Amino acid sequence: MSLKYAVIGTGAIGGYYGGNLAHSGQEVHFLFHSDYDYVKEHGLQIDSINGNFHLSDVLAYRKTKDMPACDVVLVALKSTNNSLLNELLPPLLHQDTVVILIQNGLGLEADLQETFPELQIAGGLAFICSSKIGKGHIGHFDYGKLNLGSYSCRDSKVLEQVCSDFEGAGIESNILELELARWMKLVWNIPYNGMTVVLNTETDILMNHPSTAQLLKEMMLDVIRGANHVGQGKFIIPESYADEMLQMTQQMKPYSPSMKLDFDAHRPLEIEYIYTRPIIEAQKAGYEMIRVSMLEKQLRFIQDQYIKK
Amino acid sequence: MSLKYAVIGTGAIGGYYGGNLAHSGQEVHFLFHSDYDYVKEHGLQIDSINGNFHLSDVLAYRKTKDMPACDVVLVALKSTNNSLLNELLPPLLHQDTVVILIQNGLGLEADLQETFPELQIAGGLAFICSSKIGKGHIGHFDYGKLNLGSYSCRDSKVLEQVCSDFEGAGIESNILELELARWMKLVWNIPYNGMTVVLNTETDILMNHPSTAQLLKEMMLDVIRGANHVGQGKFIIPESYADEMLQMTQQMKPYSPSMKLDFDAHRPLEIEYIYTRPIIEAQKAGYEMIRVSMLEKQLRFIQDQYIKK
Repeated sequence: MSLKYAVIGTGAIGGYYGGNLAHSGQEVHFLFHSDYDYVKEHGLQIDSINGNFHLSDVLAYRKTKDMPACDVVLVALKSTNNSLLNELLPPLLHQDTVVILIQNGLGLEADLQETFPELQIAGGLAFICSSKIGKGHIGHFDYGKLNLGSYSCRDSKVLEQVCSDFEGAGIESNILELELARWMKLVWNIPYNGMTVVLNTETDILMNHPSTAQLLKEMMLDVIRGANHVGQGKFIIPESYADEMLQMTQQMKPYSPSMKLDFDAHRPLEIEYIYTRPIIEAQKAGYEMIRVSMLEKQLRFIQDQYIKK
Repeated sequence: MSLKYAVIGTGAIGGYYGGNLAHSGQEVHFLFHSDYDYVKEHGLQIDSINGNFHLSDVLAYRKTKDMPACDVVLVALKSTNNSLLNELLPPLLHQDTVVILIQNGLGLEADLQETFPELQIAGGLAFICSSKIGKGHIGHFDYGKLNLGSYSCRDSKVLEQVCSDFEGAGIESNILELELARWMKLVWNIPYNGMTVVLNTETDILMNHPSTAQLLKEMMLDVIRGANHVGQGKFIIPESYADEMLQMTQQMKPYSPSMKLDFDAHRPLEIEYIYTRPIIEAQKAGYEMIRVSMLEKQLRFIQDQYIKK
């Protein structure tokens, strides 16, 4: 079975994963925004720690209505732009299309399902340091794993094929229980994204100060406890996972999380799905993530003060 | 009974209160640091919403060892400089001297008492917007009340006389239970000082954003609950006091709290007595002020990143 792929949001994430799929021989149709003309003429350049490559014949589009219906749509937009999906998706869908939201946070799939009740939706969790370093030019600096999980797929075959296609493109990929996987990723994303923004700093500087190192751990435990209230009977994240995340981060290069990059570029912050929804889900399950909630309020203030809307 | 006063720290607070006492005819000896030469030549100018005045013959000193022993020592240093008191105080003390710490936070008197076990100590709580606007020049913009409370005074007479001297100088003054008064002031100081620093803003902007307005209130309730754990059997602050403080602040002019002024001037922040000690006292009494503790950690990080030591 050969799948036809579409990528919505060809930036640091979509460009890297879609570019690798295309490089490995898969049929990948890319939606571009401002880079369309450049890529049409010059192609797409991926500079990766695993080896650089260039795609000269990119299936590039400016509008989804010019694209074919695809079997798999990889959505790598900022979640702050997810309302665009209502118009972007329909031309790409056939009866069995699977839409994979490669985004951080909670509630993304539920929101999309409301608009498209029959759609098969999955989530993707990217463990990667990459960024757009120029027009049609993606840099990949560390990691690269892409985990997948079904939200409303009617059978598991397509997702398994996607996983196998990524492996074939040299990208580590696993299929996981989506809700657990999303919460586990939040254990990292919630403290580091927000704290680097509020304190205008980088991960290693936060780790090297005893006060913020302690706060990061306390906030991870907040998230783990929130997750475990939500997961009751379904899953459990051991509290030792906080120490694992701290150790992993200590071994990482100094790093600006995606929200810090958005902040520095005066882009809207992904507060809703990374903070607000998890806070609400944990609250519903009877747990108040007090530190997370405080950080969310600080972020909402900062966004409204400094970010161009 | 006529009291002999000394003022240590002749800035926004010490200059205003000591200046008013001197202006009303009390004998006040002022310790100056960098402004000594200027004040010796030009005197001290107080520009106040209650009327401006000038003191031409100021009893100014560069060192406490040149000052006479006094009945009352008003300490208006930044609490980050309290270690200086060990050397500054002894020349000013006679057997019955009362030292009044006009500073914010908790634990100030206890720390001083450790060094001077026989000393009579009181606390002062200034409700005032004032600042040093130039050499020997104090501006007073709003409020002005000075409340006093005994920590270890052997009899109440001196403090009552101080209170009456301030009233005679046109300054509203009351004698209160010190621990309760300190906690009540912290209900305002803890949220506004730290939040204006961490979010680099002013009180009115915090009040006008729904997220930070809510967070300010939640943090006030944290402080009130911490206080009430500490105060069990001694005092209670009603939770409605949070709304009173919010309403009062809404009626204030846009305002940079003292910690924000310190931050802007790259001076050390009064984290220890305004945050750390209250957190520890509440913990000992069985209450975790989680938001206050998070703010304290953010402040310690910021201080170590940005403030000149």
